[in-house]
Amino acid sequence: MRTLINLQTHRREELVDITADVRAAVRASGAQNGLVALYAQGATAALMIQENWDASVPTDVVECLQRLVPRGVWRHDEQDGNGDAHIKAGLVGPSETIPLIDGQLGLSTWQGIFFCEFDGPRSSRTVICTVIPDP
Amino acid sequence: MRTLINLQTHRREELVDITADVRAAVRASGAQNGLVALYAQGATAALMIQENWDASVPTDVVECLQRLVPRGVWRHDEQDGNGDAHIKAGLVGPSETIPLIDGQLGLSTWQGIFFCEFDGPRSSRTVICTVIPDP
Amino acid sequence: MRTLINLQTHRREELVDITADVRAAVRASGAQNGLVALYAQGATAALMIQENWDASVPTDVVECLQRLVPRGVWRHDEQDGNGDAHIKAGLVGPSETIPLIDGQLGLSTWQGIFFCEFDGPRSSRTVICTVIPDP
Repeated sequence: MRTLINLQTHRREELVDITADVRAAVRASGAQNGLVALYAQGATAALMIQENWDASVPTDVVECLQRLVPRGVWRHDEQDGNGDAHIKAGLVGPSETIPLIDGQLGLSTWQGIFFCEFDGPRSSRTVICTVIPDP
Repeated sequence: MRTLINLQTHRREELVDITADVRAAVRASGAQNGLVALYAQGATAALMIQENWDASVPTDVVECLQRLVPRGVWRHDEQDGNGDAHIKAGLVGPSETIPLIDGQLGLSTWQGIFFCEFDGPRSSRTVICTVIPDP
Repeated sequence: MRTLINLQTHRREELVDITADVRAAVRASGAQNGLVALYAQGATAALMIQENWDASVPTDVVECLQRLVPRGVWRHDEQDGNGDAHIKAGLVGPSETIPLIDGQLGLSTWQGIFFCEFDGPRSSRTVICTVIPDP
């Protein structure tokens, strides 16, 4: 069963907590056990499992990536000015696969699912959620 | 079929080879072909496929990440003092999906499966192993 | 259904676009919906979803990783001289899982699938493509 999760982003770079959306998609699937495969479309976006207690860690992630992959020094910047966004998206990666256990995501207490925007704001971003039941 | 792999960690940061545990879980499942999806619980832990010949590469990985994500300079450190551990865990990521081929993991000769501890030592860490047979 | 994608690499470090090979493997499987799980064998190789418009972004990725993980300063270099290649492979990771939608890969317009070579050139590298249909 497949669900499309649509979202908006509001800054050039931010992590958006989509855990509740994924939980709703899993519940709607009715599946109890198996895998939940998540995939972020967009070559300047990614997914990250990260602590969801407050904004500190998501902000730290954005700032750490800004240090590691500075803006404005890449070949691709001559085309689109967003070379850093592509590199960050590739390093973090668009896919995460999470176990489904008795109808619940197999996250630990502090793990949340975050959409990573590296070239926003965007009015429409899509995460594809595929639930594969364990036969 | 799902198996929980439990382990202890002994240092703040280390890579622990869990390849033998995953092999045992796959064997117990009886599945011959399909996918082995692994997921590390804990927002300061991750999984990495890495060379398993000796301790040199796992140690290099820990030291490289210490350079890239230094300790003690993050917003989240005001709460828990482990901001670096969360960032490292998010960048490395908690999920890896490995093909299952005739009852064996589709690893190459030098690829091993490592649990990455970034905020240890911990008396109990969990990796969830889900085997999905190819129907 | 499983397909082995074989390829050659021509430089020490490069990203090779394998999107067309993956598309062919998916088409041959006949599956319409589910998951396409890709896995790169080799402890100095990885997979990255990345923009496929021209060579600028793949080159930027190689050069960014060279900055972040310099060559010749690692413990493992005393054995094989390729410590940097192992670290890069581990950070990028060998597995990506992509949704399969009505017989097509769920990539967005600019997302391509790249094999990452970090210790080439190599006459033979293998990516394992497993298609799991949604039952």
